[in-house]
Amino acid sequence: MPGVDGGTPYGAEDLERFATALLLRVGVSADDAALTAGSLIEANLRGVDTHGVTRVLVPYIRRLQAGVTKAQTDVAVVRDAPGAALIDGKNSIGQVVATRAMRLAITKAKETGSAWVGAMHSNHFGTAAFYALMAVEQDMIGIVMTNGIASVAPTGGRAAMLSTNPISFAIPAGDEPPVVVDMATSVVARGRIMLYDKQGLPLPEGWALDESGRPTTDAGAALRGTLLPFGGYKGYALSLVIDLLCGVMTGALFGSHFFGPLAEDMEHPMDVGHMFGVIDPSRFLPLPVFKARMDQALGELRACPPAEGARGVLIPGDLERLERERRLRDGIPLPDAVIRDFQQLGEEFGVAMPTARQ
Amino acid sequence: MPGVDGGTPYGAEDLERFATALLLRVGVSADDAALTAGSLIEANLRGVDTHGVTRVLVPYIRRLQAGVTKAQTDVAVVRDAPGAALIDGKNSIGQVVATRAMRLAITKAKETGSAWVGAMHSNHFGTAAFYALMAVEQDMIGIVMTNGIASVAPTGGRAAMLSTNPISFAIPAGDEPPVVVDMATSVVARGRIMLYDKQGLPLPEGWALDESGRPTTDAGAALRGTLLPFGGYKGYALSLVIDLLCGVMTGALFGSHFFGPLAEDMEHPMDVGHMFGVIDPSRFLPLPVFKARMDQALGELRACPPAEGARGVLIPGDLERLERERRLRDGIPLPDAVIRDFQQLGEEFGVAMPTARQ
Repeated sequence: MPGVDGGTPYGAEDLERFATALLLRVGVSADDAALTAGSLIEANLRGVDTHGVTRVLVPYIRRLQAGVTKAQTDVAVVRDAPGAALIDGKNSIGQVVATRAMRLAITKAKETGSAWVGAMHSNHFGTAAFYALMAVEQDMIGIVMTNGIASVAPTGGRAAMLSTNPISFAIPAGDEPPVVVDMATSVVARGRIMLYDKQGLPLPEGWALDESGRPTTDAGAALRGTLLPFGGYKGYALSLVIDLLCGVMTGALFGSHFFGPLAEDMEHPMDVGHMFGVIDPSRFLPLPVFKARMDQALGELRACPPAEGARGVLIPGDLERLERERRLRDGIPLPDAVIRDFQQLGEEFGVAMPTARQ
Repeated sequence: MPGVDGGTPYGAEDLERFATALLLRVGVSADDAALTAGSLIEANLRGVDTHGVTRVLVPYIRRLQAGVTKAQTDVAVVRDAPGAALIDGKNSIGQVVATRAMRLAITKAKETGSAWVGAMHSNHFGTAAFYALMAVEQDMIGIVMTNGIASVAPTGGRAAMLSTNPISFAIPAGDEPPVVVDMATSVVARGRIMLYDKQGLPLPEGWALDESGRPTTDAGAALRGTLLPFGGYKGYALSLVIDLLCGVMTGALFGSHFFGPLAEDMEHPMDVGHMFGVIDPSRFLPLPVFKARMDQALGELRACPPAEGARGVLIPGDLERLERERRLRDGIPLPDAVIRDFQQLGEEFGVAMPTARQ
């Protein structure tokens, strides 16, 4: 998991209040600030620090402050059909755009049985699973994908033409917790490579290419080069489909056209695109039957005899759920550099940095 | 590609007539025989011999002859909503069930903008791309997935709990040919391992586990063991989602509950499930704009500078399209063992085996 080890633990509620206060200071409405901060903290709780306050709070605040991301939400449904719609995010906060889009997809799927809603001119929206899980709360299946700033080379190429284009599926069950898949279509996120670079560690093979398109285990060379899709050409194919749906089909940017990185480019709106799919399983089987069958399938997987050296089979979402319980109890760990950034940001905006746990 | 090298070339039309005649002999209607034979030959033409007449014609005929698959189509729409439906295939031929389901999904998506149709109690349907491409013919995006007989171990386990669960996406473009992704979620298909076994070659690492869940490069041990998902736990997650949607949600079999293999078990209906998704891109952008953007995105990928040792970037579907042109011209290669099987089957049913090309 793209999580932080070590660091100083802070209470989730404390960090959420801190993030909310900062968002309010740069002109975000109370509702949107709560939503955005909540989604970031939820990512941290699930162990996905790359998409939590740890990595993105500072660039979010700086972009809002600079007006590169619009603080006041301005979102319009520009195309509307019973089972499909397109939302123009007009450079509003990604979490706000994504939440509206997913709500619309859920409403439509309740009527018709399934729906897809696209969003263009949007921004970084945190984790895809956050929105897929909104469907699960309504006993529906959620599918969420997004494109983003190019960092991945297509199979056979050496230029960054694709983002880490993640896809999430969330499927409700009965007594079992929901299945929650949320995966980048690159082998790893760029943030993981930066961590190796900082620690001076060599990369495992197959993660990245250097600038001239040679496989490399040198983290520095990889950062100047490109990431690789997971699983070779199959991961490339999946990543490409996500970019074509989220970028090409919605009217957002696609391929290598993005500006960035997020924390460095303070001039251009991100203009990413997302897709939100919802399927109502009760249109296929009666809901209790579906849920009982889900429990059976997942229970059988858990009972699978383990491979040599393995502890057995996990269901996607298990690790994040366990981490969430642990971090709700023990706090969210922040590295020293992030604590210093937060303190500085807090002083600048007159928001008190919370005190660490214990 | 899971294709046959070498062998004796036969004309595609000749083989299609042969397959059609055999299907008629075991009681299949003229329309359904033409559809089924056509789908198998299309797989062969695209180089996917594992899903063409080469591997599946004999078991198809034997199962129909034995009544394990129903020769007379009996298909019912059992649940119906504007954007979702469930079809009971009632053990009819997979190609026939799948074609009806995809047609229904296309009709619904034209009305609503998008739709998902599920099929249960179905059979092996050939390649998923065949149905995804039906959507492309209508300027729509097709998504097709199916489950099947378990051969793949979930990450951390050593028992076969998942099929090679393939997924296909087909997306129309303008001047560019459509993007056609069709991939198993295992590293390779079981048929590839059988080929290595026959030739006494060691497997590449990461393809399979032996019976006790140890990684193996011994093809024989792999055949007694399990295949591995592509790309590690991400491939497992994707494969699981496909089984949950196609099997659990439709009412078909799922997980390890299948009988098989297809060519050996002559008692039990397969009872596989499929899902057919359609999205109408014209509900997002005007169709000409969408197609021009597709052409731009694909053209930019083709212009990506190549990685070291690579020829450049291919678009998913390129290889199959080139192979199709080649095989339409040069014929479909059949290995000697398959030719003997076909001759025997032809004699038994009084259908003349076509003569080889040249």
